[in-house]
Amino acid sequence: MSRSKKDHAEIIKQQAFEKLVALGRQVYEQLMNERYPEFEMPMRSSSNIYYDETMRQYTVGEKRIKRHAGNVRHLKPFLQTLFVASFAARDLLEPGRTSTLRDLYYSSESAMAKMFSDQSESDNIITDLEAIIGMAREDFNIFPDARSTIFGDLTVAFRDKKTGSKREITLTFNPDGQTIGPTLVRSDFVKTSADKVICIESGGMFQRLVEENADEEFNAILIHLAGQAPRGTRRLIRRLNEELNLPVYVFVDGDPWGVHIYNVIASGSAAAAHLVGLTTPDAIWMGLTASDIMKYDLPTDHFTKGDITRTFQLLKDPRYQTPYLQQELRKFIKLKKKAEQQSLTSKSLTFVVDEYLPEKFKEIKELQKAGKL
Amino acid sequence: MSRSKKDHAEIIKQQAFEKLVALGRQVYEQLMNERYPEFEMPMRSSSNIYYDETMRQYTVGEKRIKRHAGNVRHLKPFLQTLFVASFAARDLLEPGRTSTLRDLYYSSESAMAKMFSDQSESDNIITDLEAIIGMAREDFNIFPDARSTIFGDLTVAFRDKKTGSKREITLTFNPDGQTIGPTLVRSDFVKTSADKVICIESGGMFQRLVEENADEEFNAILIHLAGQAPRGTRRLIRRLNEELNLPVYVFVDGDPWGVHIYNVIASGSAAAAHLVGLTTPDAIWMGLTASDIMKYDLPTDHFTKGDITRTFQLLKDPRYQTPYLQQELRKFIKLKKKAEQQSLTSKSLTFVVDEYLPEKFKEIKELQKAGKL
Repeated sequence: MSRSKKDHAEIIKQQAFEKLVALGRQVYEQLMNERYPEFEMPMRSSSNIYYDETMRQYTVGEKRIKRHAGNVRHLKPFLQTLFVASFAARDLLEPGRTSTLRDLYYSSESAMAKMFSDQSESDNIITDLEAIIGMAREDFNIFPDARSTIFGDLTVAFRDKKTGSKREITLTFNPDGQTIGPTLVRSDFVKTSADKVICIESGGMFQRLVEENADEEFNAILIHLAGQAPRGTRRLIRRLNEELNLPVYVFVDGDPWGVHIYNVIASGSAAAAHLVGLTTPDAIWMGLTASDIMKYDLPTDHFTKGDITRTFQLLKDPRYQTPYLQQELRKFIKLKKKAEQQSLTSKSLTFVVDEYLPEKFKEIKELQKAGKL
Repeated sequence: MSRSKKDHAEIIKQQAFEKLVALGRQVYEQLMNERYPEFEMPMRSSSNIYYDETMRQYTVGEKRIKRHAGNVRHLKPFLQTLFVASFAARDLLEPGRTSTLRDLYYSSESAMAKMFSDQSESDNIITDLEAIIGMAREDFNIFPDARSTIFGDLTVAFRDKKTGSKREITLTFNPDGQTIGPTLVRSDFVKTSADKVICIESGGMFQRLVEENADEEFNAILIHLAGQAPRGTRRLIRRLNEELNLPVYVFVDGDPWGVHIYNVIASGSAAAAHLVGLTTPDAIWMGLTASDIMKYDLPTDHFTKGDITRTFQLLKDPRYQTPYLQQELRKFIKLKKKAEQQSLTSKSLTFVVDEYLPEKFKEIKELQKAGKL
């Protein structure tokens, strides 16, 4: 495993800091030249968002918009953007602090004037700033609440904030799993014996796999997504795939919402189209598929109207055009039934490790051979 | 710190197992004596739930109900209860597995007949079983999803399931916090340098306190409640208070919902009135109080109709009869405003550790001296 001399965390921090300072410098220089300052960013509206076949993710197009301080309609968002940029550089990155979206909103209340009328306004400006510097808010230390967890034989290193020295931890340490927060997402990967990553939608199933030693059984790092994976977790999954060459499997509920959790990990979301580094295009969906539900005769619920509408939407979505996804979505529509991943428990508590996962790995290998994935 | 020879986890497991077996034996003996089997449990309806001034928690009264296999209306819940008891003893406690409420519901699908028509039915029977044996479902290995976390200088020990040997971890290990799951809740406390516990409602504030080294600054173990604290977390808080004699402070949003999060930790909930060992009667509310909101002129939201109704309910609640709680609830009603704990960020990112918490500890000491808490 190759390691650069600098920590992953330091490299990111420096890049973000430099880009924020460059933005400030640009505005400053325009002012010094007695011009109204302005800056540009990619347009984030749906007319400028498309699925890029080469990048295999949603991305933004060529259209750009300008924020010009000489335009009275632009003045407020112009100032708001500079406030967030300055807060991120000076109050977060420089002293090494993190904050939440909510913290940032409240912090603006201490500014001379009330900067934002509500949090949706400050959230939106934070996304603008992401688009301007082309980096995620996590890179300038604005994090959502941590809620997903990881377990498995992976040793990571990070700098202890108090002592300044490096520490290593191995993520089998606590059987309840390690929280994926700012520290873990940006840690350096030191070593692993695992040869794959399995991402799991529900906490119950994650705990089941940890208890049944699925990490050893399948040589896997286990990640609990806690529903739609937070962006920090999607970043970590991408890094495990990219830096350690680990194939990523995503194990979700057998319904359109579960498939979509998989797909956002693989191909990203429209809301984060202005960012790269969050997707894992080669991630593999490992069910529950509609075929699994039939094959194992699992306890099901009926599709609701919402489930049906959603499945038809996915069928047309550019991210769902592989033959395999199309086939399974069509089967769901025919079956009109869904099943949670925990429904596998109806066979026995160990069925998922004894039968389901080994079978699924075999099936995936065959699909890959046949070029169907 | 005194330590018994047996692990905390083993003692609990054995107690629960013996009580479940005793229930089974009772039914078996009745059958052998050619009687319709029956068992009893405390009635859990509101007419039998009251606030016990001595225990300082909600508890169940003397009324008991019978489940009698000779009564056709009792037959289904009778069998359901025995199914859950047998599952807990044989499939969970004996092999050392845990499961979720959902797992249990699905597991029943593998029984000869469909045992439960939906999960609310199986959840309800699990609560019955708690009442019958007087122990919490966590004691017979049925856990909710883990979502709260802990950080601070506390060393705990637990048995490694794979090697069978004891392991110690110190909970300052990962700055993102340790998940409070089945392992941690039942671990043995080995040592701590902390002299108090601070429980925190929101993830943003928890992360802030960890970053600002509040654990060292205030010599505290920090616990993220993630809203209304899960029962495992309430158990852990009680154990920290009881076994280590650590005073417990609860830091929540300044609104009736926040105060109630505090109060459930202190005095329990009606839903868990049939259980002991989950409450910490001496836990101290550390705001945000209505007075804090005025004193620091914090950014607020207006009280909704629901907030007002809720506050009037709390004023009449037997758990809210201390002069201090009454006074602050009345102030909230007068103020008609609420503030999140993160609103303290509006002063500065470090205001909470530099000003708010030191002031609050002083204030609490004075209130205690004056006998007002």
